[in-house]
Amino acid sequence: MITIAVDAMGGDHAPRPEVEGSVLAAREFNVRILLVGQPNAVRAELAKHSVPNLPIEIVPASEVITMNDHPAQAFRRKKDSSVHVAARLVHDGKADGMLSAGNTGAVMTAAKFILGTLESVDRVALAAPFPNARGGVSVLLDVGANVDSRPEHLVQFAVMGEVYYRATFGNRRPRVGLLSVGEEEIKGNVLTREVYTLLKKSPVHFVGNVEGGDLFSGSVDVIVCDGFVGNIALKICEGLAVSIFDLLKKSLKSSILSQVGAKLSQGAFKGLKRKIDYTEYGGAPLLGVRGVCVIGHGRSNANAVKNAIRVAAGLARARLNERIEQELSATAVPA
Amino acid sequence: MITIAVDAMGGDHAPRPEVEGSVLAAREFNVRILLVGQPNAVRAELAKHSVPNLPIEIVPASEVITMNDHPAQAFRRKKDSSVHVAARLVHDGKADGMLSAGNTGAVMTAAKFILGTLESVDRVALAAPFPNARGGVSVLLDVGANVDSRPEHLVQFAVMGEVYYRATFGNRRPRVGLLSVGEEEIKGNVLTREVYTLLKKSPVHFVGNVEGGDLFSGSVDVIVCDGFVGNIALKICEGLAVSIFDLLKKSLKSSILSQVGAKLSQGAFKGLKRKIDYTEYGGAPLLGVRGVCVIGHGRSNANAVKNAIRVAAGLARARLNERIEQELSATAVPA
Repeated sequence: MITIAVDAMGGDHAPRPEVEGSVLAAREFNVRILLVGQPNAVRAELAKHSVPNLPIEIVPASEVITMNDHPAQAFRRKKDSSVHVAARLVHDGKADGMLSAGNTGAVMTAAKFILGTLESVDRVALAAPFPNARGGVSVLLDVGANVDSRPEHLVQFAVMGEVYYRATFGNRRPRVGLLSVGEEEIKGNVLTREVYTLLKKSPVHFVGNVEGGDLFSGSVDVIVCDGFVGNIALKICEGLAVSIFDLLKKSLKSSILSQVGAKLSQGAFKGLKRKIDYTEYGGAPLLGVRGVCVIGHGRSNANAVKNAIRVAAGLARARLNERIEQELSATAVPA
Repeated sequence: MITIAVDAMGGDHAPRPEVEGSVLAAREFNVRILLVGQPNAVRAELAKHSVPNLPIEIVPASEVITMNDHPAQAFRRKKDSSVHVAARLVHDGKADGMLSAGNTGAVMTAAKFILGTLESVDRVALAAPFPNARGGVSVLLDVGANVDSRPEHLVQFAVMGEVYYRATFGNRRPRVGLLSVGEEEIKGNVLTREVYTLLKKSPVHFVGNVEGGDLFSGSVDVIVCDGFVGNIALKICEGLAVSIFDLLKKSLKSSILSQVGAKLSQGAFKGLKRKIDYTEYGGAPLLGVRGVCVIGHGRSNANAVKNAIRVAAGLARARLNERIEQELSATAVPA
């Protein structure tokens, strides 16, 4: 049975959604959960659920890293944090993967330093799934593990993204695009033009440059970019979606007629919200570390936690890292 | 009276919205219009409006650059295009500014080569206005005139953006932010860290790094970035807004109840669409060229054309370029 270490103290509403999501996951999937955190808090939350025969255990961690902690400082100072302990469980082979909805920077730092990087990987990458217009999912990476990437790093991101996509979304030959400012090969900046040439020669199913709008068009499955661009892209999507829903809410409250209309359409709005809800897609895996590490959004609810556990378990089961190593040794870009 | 040369053949539905928007602008604002394009087509469109005493003239241009034309090729081959002729009218002092809703790349090429660049400007920048959550407008630049910008270019963008913002949105001391991946000074890539240092020393009202979500938060007025990042940001916004509205439409059609609801809420939806509608904000000025050049979206309707003419006339009236030259000579970043 696959074992996932869940950082019970990470998210904005921890440990409630972490514990509830773990209970749901342990019930629905064939997975064992190690709930890592302050035992009293976790136990109190767990007591709210009926868990007599579920494979859930509590692993104590005395410290908590908050969203306001500086990632590198928190990593150095809070060595018994739930993030540290979860990462050590994976490092020591006591868990096959970890999940945290905590401070993204701190989780990435802990994963990079405690788990380490795969032999054939120079830089790790954070991969974010986006729902697309064709009803599928497109994955953007890197969304912020690194900046100032070199061309060979982006080629590694492409390979890792492809392996992750295959393992998680069941597509044997995902289409990989390079995020740029025009479709032609010559479009882009110095970095993307070099990456284009390398990807054309690689075994990756590279379909060429894509533009910002292709994050949602469904024209490609995996979209590769430097983490500076990817992080800005991710934050724009979050910000714009929130803005549009806020404006919609205000707009709908502006007259009695539209208030009545909004009430009648409630189901449709909820359906839409669910469709563009990241929580359905199971968090963002940090690819390239030794072990499986999935990072959830701070706002993760129980459903998001459950789905992220499913994704982490799936990646462990699919032997993600073995496959990444195999594919990368076949790709071998001269540095 | 300010004279604006309007490329009548540029947009997706040219010359209809171009002519109608020009008629509206000539009626509402104190502005003279030169409608540049194929005389028969423009005249036929103009005949649909009552324009006996309006200051509108037709200037012939035999060729048309389409959205499918390659910008550099079209610039070289279609020398009597409406874009060329409009740019030459500005260059020759027969118009104070130009507006085109045509092929953005071709318009930028024509403006750069025919108008030329200001003395103190190394690189031009395309500035895109975004409606923000506080009911105001935030401007992002550069959204695609250049890639691989150097630090001193971004400082020039900041100055040009500030001058444009002041002239167009009536804010005397617009707050300028640098698009990055975290608020702290050390966050970002090699480029932004250098720009941060330069902007701190400049006379620009620099408020520090901002993130992707700040495009809509209204926390800053002018946001500076390299054109590669800016273009991707712009395309993401367009793509995501269209996606959300499509999903909303589908969602609302999914049941009879929500269909009735949608009908009742129609006014609210329209209000929202207007609020996030770029057409209200008057197109994107290409800053740094000698003369005023505003680029509209290909989908521009008459209202968008009218507003873009208003912006172009306003920039000419405010002597945008004189102010840019003054500010830049005061900023003087060593190259």
